[in-house]
Amino acid sequence: MTGPSIADRGSPSARLPVHRKSVRVYYEDTDAAGIVYYANYLKFADRGRTELMRELGYAHSAIAAETGVLFTVRRVAVDYRSPARLDDALDVETRVVEIGGATLLLDQRVCRDGAVLAQLDVLVACIGRDGRPRRVPAGLRAALGAARQSSVTPPIVQKTP
Amino acid sequence: MTGPSIADRGSPSARLPVHRKSVRVYYEDTDAAGIVYYANYLKFADRGRTELMRELGYAHSAIAAETGVLFTVRRVAVDYRSPARLDDALDVETRVVEIGGATLLLDQRVCRDGAVLAQLDVLVACIGRDGRPRRVPAGLRAALGAARQSSVTPPIVQKTP
Amino acid sequence: MTGPSIADRGSPSARLPVHRKSVRVYYEDTDAAGIVYYANYLKFADRGRTELMRELGYAHSAIAAETGVLFTVRRVAVDYRSPARLDDALDVETRVVEIGGATLLLDQRVCRDGAVLAQLDVLVACIGRDGRPRRVPAGLRAALGAARQSSVTPPIVQKTP
Amino acid sequence: MTGPSIADRGSPSARLPVHRKSVRVYYEDTDAAGIVYYANYLKFADRGRTELMRELGYAHSAIAAETGVLFTVRRVAVDYRSPARLDDALDVETRVVEIGGATLLLDQRVCRDGAVLAQLDVLVACIGRDGRPRRVPAGLRAALGAARQSSVTPPIVQKTP
Repeated sequence: MTGPSIADRGSPSARLPVHRKSVRVYYEDTDAAGIVYYANYLKFADRGRTELMRELGYAHSAIAAETGVLFTVRRVAVDYRSPARLDDALDVETRVVEIGGATLLLDQRVCRDGAVLAQLDVLVACIGRDGRPRRVPAGLRAALGAARQSSVTPPIVQKTP
Repeated sequence: MTGPSIADRGSPSARLPVHRKSVRVYYEDTDAAGIVYYANYLKFADRGRTELMRELGYAHSAIAAETGVLFTVRRVAVDYRSPARLDDALDVETRVVEIGGATLLLDQRVCRDGAVLAQLDVLVACIGRDGRPRRVPAGLRAALGAARQSSVTPPIVQKTP
Repeated sequence: MTGPSIADRGSPSARLPVHRKSVRVYYEDTDAAGIVYYANYLKFADRGRTELMRELGYAHSAIAAETGVLFTVRRVAVDYRSPARLDDALDVETRVVEIGGATLLLDQRVCRDGAVLAQLDVLVACIGRDGRPRRVPAGLRAALGAARQSSVTPPIVQKTP
Repeated sequence: MTGPSIADRGSPSARLPVHRKSVRVYYEDTDAAGIVYYANYLKFADRGRTELMRELGYAHSAIAAETGVLFTVRRVAVDYRSPARLDDALDVETRVVEIGGATLLLDQRVCRDGAVLAQLDVLVACIGRDGRPRRVPAGLRAALGAARQSSVTPPIVQKTP
């Protein structure tokens, strides 16, 4: 129904290294339809991105204090395929599709037992406290690039099986 | 940066009748960056859709009880243009772009003083309690169609100025 | 089960002037048990407090910019009596029970058709940007006091019927 | 300022076995004041309670399917002592203070580096799908009781140091 996502086009994202973050579904995440509320997948994706960056040494609060750079989402497209439910153990997969001058393009997937429940294309931009665009911090760029090039499988940022 | 949205393509959505719902920004909506958290625009859009349907006589709980039909979001694409902040008085604009057999395509915009802060393309699907697709209820289809055709300006669903 | 609340003790809060704020229940507010999630009553109460203060001329962002004073909740006690559900039209009632040097004690009630679904005792403290206690701004104190003394029924801050 | 909490009175809760659940603070949890929004401590506490019960073999969805029993919060009192901030690594401590016929009284604490940021007294009630009171399931009662009596230190439900 949706056609190929950004992640399926061009660089086959299935081959990109993937970061995984576990997320448990609690009552706070669900709604009266008995499933996870549609806005909350964006929270799960944010947790995945945040942990990816923390593990590379770039926790949000540290990077803001050191460089004045904040990360903001410019665009997000979500394809909801199958609902998550109370008590589900989910995995948020994050792949870095493209590193631009001031932006990061990510392919994120919320999965349960290997099945993709929701797929998100996320365009993240770096901005300063004044809201104006800033370059992706050099160290983060290098760390993300290294993670992408890596043919080795580090414990946290790993190739898909 | 994003190219033409669904709403700008084909049927020029600017000419479609628009439903407006006021939303106030509270602390609950903001985050430590001092702006509205990105997932919360989806809550605002949901409130707009819900009020549009309520005003047409199709409140969620009533329609579920009467017809067994639930509304679920299949796809959403958000273009974040400018941040909303604490205490902002926002307007959620909702336009019905297309009425399919079992889906509704909506163009939604979160605005402040006439400026679009975020634009959302939302594909809503009708499903039964079993999760399987259901036809858009005939009465709702008629009401939405009438609202779209209307050259008159009803008090709630009105043409853009 | 809970014994007399602060509001029922001493100054019979039923006689205090009351501020009312309408709140609609959306999917975002509910959980998989089909009712409003317990933490979300605190959001409703916050909206009520915020609108009370805005109507007295003390919007959060304005007061913070002008005086550097922020409002923070020190204690809240919630008595959940009956659940709110999807599409419910609720009223948040707010009564100022006590105005201290740096604190406000409020009795808040989330009601549906006159029935109290949840009752909250809320102790709000004024703090500076450094997190240290600050006096309740004089103008706000006067406005709240006037509202409390008032035997007239202003359009917004009115006596209970 | 608050006087002795339920947990400090009678049975000194510091001696009760404690369950710990780690919680990370993300942007979704914070507000424009730069700290964790006051309602979100109730989400953290819910996660702690949920994990305690899951580890005893009573996940919410399983217990509801098997016994028809749901857990609902009847009362909660929160004492906010110090704010949590973005990226904080928190611990939610949960102690079972009292097991009633149809209720559980819990002392919960949201901590950072051993300091209590917020303390919650939570009265949880067992109800059926009809909303009427139900007995605490016998197996859960036994498991909670065993955890309380235990002088041994199991890996998850452990004595405070």
